[in-house]
Amino acid sequence: MTTLTDAVRTRLADTNFWHIATINEDGSPQVSPVWADVDGDHVLVNTAIGRRKDRNVRRDPRVALSAADKDNPYLNIEIRGRVVRIIEGQEAEDSIDELCRKYTGEFPYPWRKPGERRVLYVIEPETVQARL
Amino acid sequence: MTTLTDAVRTRLADTNFWHIATINEDGSPQVSPVWADVDGDHVLVNTAIGRRKDRNVRRDPRVALSAADKDNPYLNIEIRGRVVRIIEGQEAEDSIDELCRKYTGEFPYPWRKPGERRVLYVIEPETVQARL
Repeated sequence: MTTLTDAVRTRLADTNFWHIATINEDGSPQVSPVWADVDGDHVLVNTAIGRRKDRNVRRDPRVALSAADKDNPYLNIEIRGRVVRIIEGQEAEDSIDELCRKYTGEFPYPWRKPGERRVLYVIEPETVQARL
Repeated sequence: MTTLTDAVRTRLADTNFWHIATINEDGSPQVSPVWADVDGDHVLVNTAIGRRKDRNVRRDPRVALSAADKDNPYLNIEIRGRVVRIIEGQEAEDSIDELCRKYTGEFPYPWRKPGERRVLYVIEPETVQARL
């Protein structure tokens, strides 16, 4: 566990796009874009239950995140850590609505597919490399 | 091996920022931002010899790449594949100069550190998911 600096926390609170890497069953890497947010020293990421990254983090909670600052892509942050809580149900549904409001101004999240259920990951950072 | 569509090739030829995931020695993921380019059906990525991602791909050539379109981050591409050629020497040095020209307009690449040697990865895509 590591403490996030204010500069890193600010980037997580802002509307930067993050890319989260997870490990496939065969040990190969997978990476996909996500919205993110911050709660104290934890990183929050929300996805739909059953997607590849969801299946992956339930098997292996180790993840890595990378973002380039939206206003200057030469400022960037890499975080390695692990998913320490997997939250489903109303809290996960509410969190995607809030992320959507933060990133797009729309509320609630309008792109739910029929039957889609959301999941919220609470990620504990282990190492952070920030070039800010 | 898969064939890249024109839309994916165009994004790789453009000045989008990519995030490349590799596998650490302990099997955990690592992800960091990179410039990229395209050569036929291959993705080109350049880094400095000895960096974490370089050590990783020499041990395990499986990589994944993710990019959000610079003009509309809701258009994005995920590529999974493997490094099939590792090129060092003049060709790798020339390639970082060309990438720098493409992304910044500057030539040659001005940020070499003393003693830094560059390496060029030729990546063969295995799966491509494009939301364009």
